[in-house]
Amino acid sequence: MERRALLLLLLAFLTPGAPIPVPPALKALSNLHLSTRLTSRPAIDIKYSIHYIQQKVDHFGFDTDKTFKQRYLIADKHWKKDGGSILFYTGNEGDITWFCNNTGFMWDMAEELKAMLVFAEHRYYGESLPFGANSFKDSTHLNFLTSEQALADFAKLIKHLKRTVPGAKNQPVIALGGSYGGMLAAWFRMKYPHMVVGALASSAPIWQFEDLVPCGVFMEIVTADFRKSGPNCSESIRRSWDAIRRLTSTGPGLHWLSEALHLCSPLTNSQDVEHLKDWITETWVNLAMVDYPYESNFLQPLPAWPIKVVCQYLKNPNVSDPQLLQNIFQALNVYYNYSGQVKCLNMSETATRSLGSLGWSYQACTEMVMPFCTNGIDDMFEPHSWNLKEFSDDCFKQWGVRPRPSWITTMYGGKNISSHTNIIFSNGDLDPWSGGGVTENVTDTLVAITIPEGAHHLDLRANNAFDPTSVLLARSLEVRYMKQWIKNFYASLRKKR
Amino acid sequence: MERRALLLLLLAFLTPGAPIPVPPALKALSNLHLSTRLTSRPAIDIKYSIHYIQQKVDHFGFDTDKTFKQRYLIADKHWKKDGGSILFYTGNEGDITWFCNNTGFMWDMAEELKAMLVFAEHRYYGESLPFGANSFKDSTHLNFLTSEQALADFAKLIKHLKRTVPGAKNQPVIALGGSYGGMLAAWFRMKYPHMVVGALASSAPIWQFEDLVPCGVFMEIVTADFRKSGPNCSESIRRSWDAIRRLTSTGPGLHWLSEALHLCSPLTNSQDVEHLKDWITETWVNLAMVDYPYESNFLQPLPAWPIKVVCQYLKNPNVSDPQLLQNIFQALNVYYNYSGQVKCLNMSETATRSLGSLGWSYQACTEMVMPFCTNGIDDMFEPHSWNLKEFSDDCFKQWGVRPRPSWITTMYGGKNISSHTNIIFSNGDLDPWSGGGVTENVTDTLVAITIPEGAHHLDLRANNAFDPTSVLLARSLEVRYMKQWIKNFYASLRKKR
Repeated sequence: MERRALLLLLLAFLTPGAPIPVPPALKALSNLHLSTRLTSRPAIDIKYSIHYIQQKVDHFGFDTDKTFKQRYLIADKHWKKDGGSILFYTGNEGDITWFCNNTGFMWDMAEELKAMLVFAEHRYYGESLPFGANSFKDSTHLNFLTSEQALADFAKLIKHLKRTVPGAKNQPVIALGGSYGGMLAAWFRMKYPHMVVGALASSAPIWQFEDLVPCGVFMEIVTADFRKSGPNCSESIRRSWDAIRRLTSTGPGLHWLSEALHLCSPLTNSQDVEHLKDWITETWVNLAMVDYPYESNFLQPLPAWPIKVVCQYLKNPNVSDPQLLQNIFQALNVYYNYSGQVKCLNMSETATRSLGSLGWSYQACTEMVMPFCTNGIDDMFEPHSWNLKEFSDDCFKQWGVRPRPSWITTMYGGKNISSHTNIIFSNGDLDPWSGGGVTENVTDTLVAITIPEGAHHLDLRANNAFDPTSVLLARSLEVRYMKQWIKNFYASLRKKR
Repeated sequence: MERRALLLLLLAFLTPGAPIPVPPALKALSNLHLSTRLTSRPAIDIKYSIHYIQQKVDHFGFDTDKTFKQRYLIADKHWKKDGGSILFYTGNEGDITWFCNNTGFMWDMAEELKAMLVFAEHRYYGESLPFGANSFKDSTHLNFLTSEQALADFAKLIKHLKRTVPGAKNQPVIALGGSYGGMLAAWFRMKYPHMVVGALASSAPIWQFEDLVPCGVFMEIVTADFRKSGPNCSESIRRSWDAIRRLTSTGPGLHWLSEALHLCSPLTNSQDVEHLKDWITETWVNLAMVDYPYESNFLQPLPAWPIKVVCQYLKNPNVSDPQLLQNIFQALNVYYNYSGQVKCLNMSETATRSLGSLGWSYQACTEMVMPFCTNGIDDMFEPHSWNLKEFSDDCFKQWGVRPRPSWITTMYGGKNISSHTNIIFSNGDLDPWSGGGVTENVTDTLVAITIPEGAHHLDLRANNAFDPTSVLLARSLEVRYMKQWIKNFYASLRKKR
């Protein structure tokens, strides 16, 4: 049970052979495929060139002078050397080409802002591996996987671009990112304000640390999404856990449930049952993050407002245990088999088998310590408290490192950020990560934009015919701020001359 | 000759056995003893308690979880829990008790600001040695000696104080420092504005990097000090180098000069002559930094306005080589033998035999790469250009590391710092370090205070009956800013409640 608690609190899924599961949420959702091709709108013409820059493996120490190749992408179709700008995507935990393909907003804005688009890959992800195949070998090789090193990479890259790309020198740079990448965008503006005139931090849970927000808020939002999406929907899910426990207390029950859920591998013991509950939990969490207003393509395609579709199967909590679990299967089937092509549901195939899971697992075990908890009352999940000691021990077992849960707030200021300027924090109310985000203006220039109908960084996605008005407004406000930053930059440049 | 160039450009002196000399200037001048006891004013009652905090050896990596004891001092005689403040000295390259005893301004202000005084020792100096006696053993042990690690120590210490000292939690903290410590104070406010409401950066040459200021400016200011302090004074020094060259071209000349200068160890070869010139150069540099308006106590006691006293011996440049060098001896004697007790002048005994020289030498070879040069025209020294390649090779020979000359500006913004707030940059016009300092307001809240009659961080020294009006004005302006920051802090605290 203790083990399970940890899994849940990590919002984790089990990858074969990995003793500690990977917290997928931040990563997975950033990797959503663009849905432009699913709409009537013409697809964006995503064309970029691929580049590499030699970066120091360690910006903060001089004992090693070793370097590695950081990958970055440039798209300059709409860039103007005269009065243009540079939009700099602060890459997060995954392959940068994926983010590049999935941040349609930047492509949509490029012409209006006469912008060069730059997508910088985060070290230890994609091709930007400091020690090649050995990068994840042990804690010694992983030692340089931190947000501070990543920000320093970004700073060096911007300096490099300004020096080497003719016309870039006297242009304003704006940082943009979503999820962990949104945190990096905000932190980059905080720590390197000489490098970027402002930042758009979309769905960036910069306060999901220590006790800055209640640990239960994340799962409460997931629950609220289900509650709002259909009558009795969250209540059905809440009751399902006990039903699973009762059904799986016997061998025939295990067998029956495996069949009812069309699992590819049957449940054989209590450990499998815990795994099942984690997997189902993760499915609900992922659905909350991708509850987009239009068809979108995740690992499998999803319908518009997928939670509403799921909830159609979960209207009645007052049914027998077998009936309830058959309904749960129908709900899961929406997520895992919208295409109708899937033969069985695979608990080791989740929405987050994508890139970077190892790296993020390490980061969660060092700097990115996000406490999560559930109580089963304010949320629809089994109660689990946050257990730092256990978390730390498991991190030590897997990576040979111990988390430093208060470091991020020491470094980046926690809630005391009002002396910074020019950061937009955007959040969707449907997105569970908004619980750890900045959802109210801190100052006139540290502004919060909330998108009532938005899930995880909806605003960063490409324009879509089915976008709700709220996200269109959010994007237009974001562009307005960015234009203002650009204007101020050029005004101050003229003054200097 | 190449060798000599390097020495000069480091503003260095030779310590026995150390292949690369130590740039002493920043350090040495911070270590000046308080002169209060030399005046009629009652001595400050300097009483503090000594404390230690466990700090991570590496804040930026998780491979090692090793800790060390950082020392810090607290003086809370005048501290008020109600409406008080915390003045935080960002310790620089030396023993913290020394800085504590030599930053009289903080002691003078304490009552007015109801302030707790905290003096934090910089890692790798004084007692705060991450690896004890092995701390300077090799580049592996030195790997954690950086300004970033030092700032992180300060941040953790402030967090610790706020958590553990009853009454400290809701008080404003102000960073103060001089010289390298002034740079740290400014950078601390830039990077950790959530930790300190403002910073007083006294004589902080934050722009003495890369090409932010001309490399010759430092020695030009030294020269100007001598030019202003007596007729023909700088010209006499300018001519002395050739005179030394001519005199030492023969064996008897070497012998004669050794006698004339009362050197403890006679000159025997051309290397000794280069050493001699470095030593004399450093003496003039040091005099420029400590050109204080009252008697002060350095390694030896010095008279008020010591350069004026020195220049009394250097009025006539049109004399024979031997006469010129005898005059130079008289001038040196002011600096090295004001007490009249010294039997001979010791070229390996300089004003900077004090603490921390090894550490600073490493820092100069890694992050703190300050280009210096002379041309013999705008300054009174022999021409030497800045040679990074040679500098780098010598650093590699001594420490096994290579300098990264553009890192500091990448990290701390170079001249592009206008988005920061609440930093006072104070500089004395007599201080050669003012050439790399911020001497004009950057914005309304990044303000420059210049002290025409001031040498190196005169404003941080204790009040003195002979203080010129300009430093009194500077200090009173500084106090006014600090009071405003404190007031704003409490106003915003009340708003939050």
